[in-house]
Amino acid sequence: MRAVGVIVEYNPFHNGHAFHLQKAKEATDADIMIAVMSGNFLQRGEPALVSKWTRTKMALAAGVDIVFELPYPFATQKADTFANGAVSILTAAMCHSLCFGSEDGDVSAFHATDYFLKKHDHQLQIKIKQHMKAGVSYPKAVANALQTISTNEKLIDLSKPNNMLGYQYVSAVQEQKSSMHICTIKRQNADYHDEQFSSETIASATSIRKALFSKMENTEIIKQYVPISTYHYLMKYKQLYGDFHQWENYWPFLKFKLLQSTAKQLKHIYEMEEGLENRFLSAAEEANSFYQFIEKIKTKRYTWTRLQRASVHLLTNTQKEEMMMHGKTAEYLRLLGFSKNGKTYLNKMKHQFHLPLISKLSSFKSEKIALDIRASKIFALSSRKLLKEEFSHPPIFYDKRTQI
Amino acid sequence: MRAVGVIVEYNPFHNGHAFHLQKAKEATDADIMIAVMSGNFLQRGEPALVSKWTRTKMALAAGVDIVFELPYPFATQKADTFANGAVSILTAAMCHSLCFGSEDGDVSAFHATDYFLKKHDHQLQIKIKQHMKAGVSYPKAVANALQTISTNEKLIDLSKPNNMLGYQYVSAVQEQKSSMHICTIKRQNADYHDEQFSSETIASATSIRKALFSKMENTEIIKQYVPISTYHYLMKYKQLYGDFHQWENYWPFLKFKLLQSTAKQLKHIYEMEEGLENRFLSAAEEANSFYQFIEKIKTKRYTWTRLQRASVHLLTNTQKEEMMMHGKTAEYLRLLGFSKNGKTYLNKMKHQFHLPLISKLSSFKSEKIALDIRASKIFALSSRKLLKEEFSHPPIFYDKRTQI
Repeated sequence: MRAVGVIVEYNPFHNGHAFHLQKAKEATDADIMIAVMSGNFLQRGEPALVSKWTRTKMALAAGVDIVFELPYPFATQKADTFANGAVSILTAAMCHSLCFGSEDGDVSAFHATDYFLKKHDHQLQIKIKQHMKAGVSYPKAVANALQTISTNEKLIDLSKPNNMLGYQYVSAVQEQKSSMHICTIKRQNADYHDEQFSSETIASATSIRKALFSKMENTEIIKQYVPISTYHYLMKYKQLYGDFHQWENYWPFLKFKLLQSTAKQLKHIYEMEEGLENRFLSAAEEANSFYQFIEKIKTKRYTWTRLQRASVHLLTNTQKEEMMMHGKTAEYLRLLGFSKNGKTYLNKMKHQFHLPLISKLSSFKSEKIALDIRASKIFALSSRKLLKEEFSHPPIFYDKRTQI
Repeated sequence: MRAVGVIVEYNPFHNGHAFHLQKAKEATDADIMIAVMSGNFLQRGEPALVSKWTRTKMALAAGVDIVFELPYPFATQKADTFANGAVSILTAAMCHSLCFGSEDGDVSAFHATDYFLKKHDHQLQIKIKQHMKAGVSYPKAVANALQTISTNEKLIDLSKPNNMLGYQYVSAVQEQKSSMHICTIKRQNADYHDEQFSSETIASATSIRKALFSKMENTEIIKQYVPISTYHYLMKYKQLYGDFHQWENYWPFLKFKLLQSTAKQLKHIYEMEEGLENRFLSAAEEANSFYQFIEKIKTKRYTWTRLQRASVHLLTNTQKEEMMMHGKTAEYLRLLGFSKNGKTYLNKMKHQFHLPLISKLSSFKSEKIALDIRASKIFALSSRKLLKEEFSHPPIFYDKRTQI
């Protein structure tokens, strides 16, 4: 059996994701589709719209065969750490190839860029630092630095967010000496950050979330951009748990945490560096919403994403020393769900997996998974039902005939 | 000028308190009435119904001339620590006498009891420990132990809550070699813990609070038990800040704090002893309200009050080492409010005060007051307006002609 791996957040799953899955399967001639998916908190430092369980169901309904959780120490991090965690999981699960979406869509350009960057690493690092000192963002600084070194090779444009992420995957595959083949699919329409709907069937997850939170718009508008299964799961979630998740729901808790903490205590929190703790403390007393809070502390140096990530770590009380316990690669495969085909693959291949496979939380007694559990508890603050699920929810077995 | 001191919580101020003030003034022939009052969190480990500022106004409207805050490290503690803090403040403010309410009402019996207890201390401690081991509460154990030693002296019944507290005041006066005279007034009707109204004009603060939180009863019912000024301040508070304060309002924050903490971290919290941290952690996930939470961890050994106090310290993140920084007596006099007479007294006497007088928080740069500030921030979580007041509120000057 040949498995292709994808690295996803599915916040929520939409037609663009479905397109990618279909193309990935075609391009790699795979029988099995494995997704490694962020848990309840995401790379940009945000709570997911709906829990990882519901997002797993969306993925399985759309043809993914196995969903593993990308653990918290990788999911809420900068692109390189995120990529290393995800690649290590797909490699450990014996994926034949890794397929990601990108603005570029040309796999040889990714390989060339990786080779080129490694070759000129020292020279580039100096130039990147210069650009960043001048106030340019990291992706932009890398792109600018690249332009200053002439080459005949066709390199990718690293200022595009999905190219940058893809490059990190390729780099992680190299670094980890993973045997996975690389495949990339050109993304259709919709930029990552688009807030408006711009096509008839493809929309960014950002614009879909915006529509879901909008009090003005009818949520039915998203129907044209997501599979019907996604739509049903979203509506069912709202009905069961009362609401979708967003930062503002957690703001009172973040504020409380800040009001009861000293600067010295905050310094132990991961990503709380360079006096950020004092900015957090003074902004907390003034701000009346999470949006206002971040607006108050945002600078050129502290981007919105960086501040959101620090806020997530504060919310989950993630200490620096806890993060340091984790290496650059994952330590377990937490199974969130599987299809019938996925089950066959697991039964056949699990003995060859490089990492322990966790189906039941209670059977994995290790401090290594503590941050995942804490993050789920905090995510579930709003709902006791949700809180219980972290401990009692079995991996989802998705059978086409019976579910939704 | 002759000042009489009272030790109060005024949660809220009622006719019983007014009766005590009048009798205290008569009995001591004082021109000035000074109250030392708990801040926003009280001795039984509860948030006060309304902020310390509003409770100060109630006191001034009822004839108190000066209100000092009993700092957090004394206000949220067992009777002996509470008493020592309060007595040290009244002594530092040059009070001529201390007057408290008690079930007994006979000052010579208090002196006799204090003398007797100190004389037989060793013998009594052994017996008290025996009774407590058998599962009896501390006040009851003291009362039982006393009965086993025969004497001709008339001793007070220490199983009555106000006798016990009064005894602690008398004992603190002795210990601190305070020159204050002791005076006690027999309490009228209404037991401390009464939840029902049992007289026409005197009701316990407990029963008044119960009526205020009741959805069934009209709040007008309390009018007969409190001065009209108290009633107005209560109604104004509810209008300004939305609601009265009670534990259930803080429960989501306490739960969040527990969900994001490890047992090791909780052990640093004051009063978190003997494995209590593990009981707290497991109860937090199950409970849906503060009431449910305490019900789950309550045992003979861990009384409701003890658990509430530990919960307050957890809510304010009060560490053991922070509490240890404070001695047995207070370190400053935080002025919450004063009348015209109070102003004259302050002007005349403040140079003789044994402790620094704080009128403006910003002029007292000391870590010593950090816990008071943090407690007020946490208390004010529900309201930004309330939060600002801790820093900007000047002591209240109450002039009979202008206020309410």
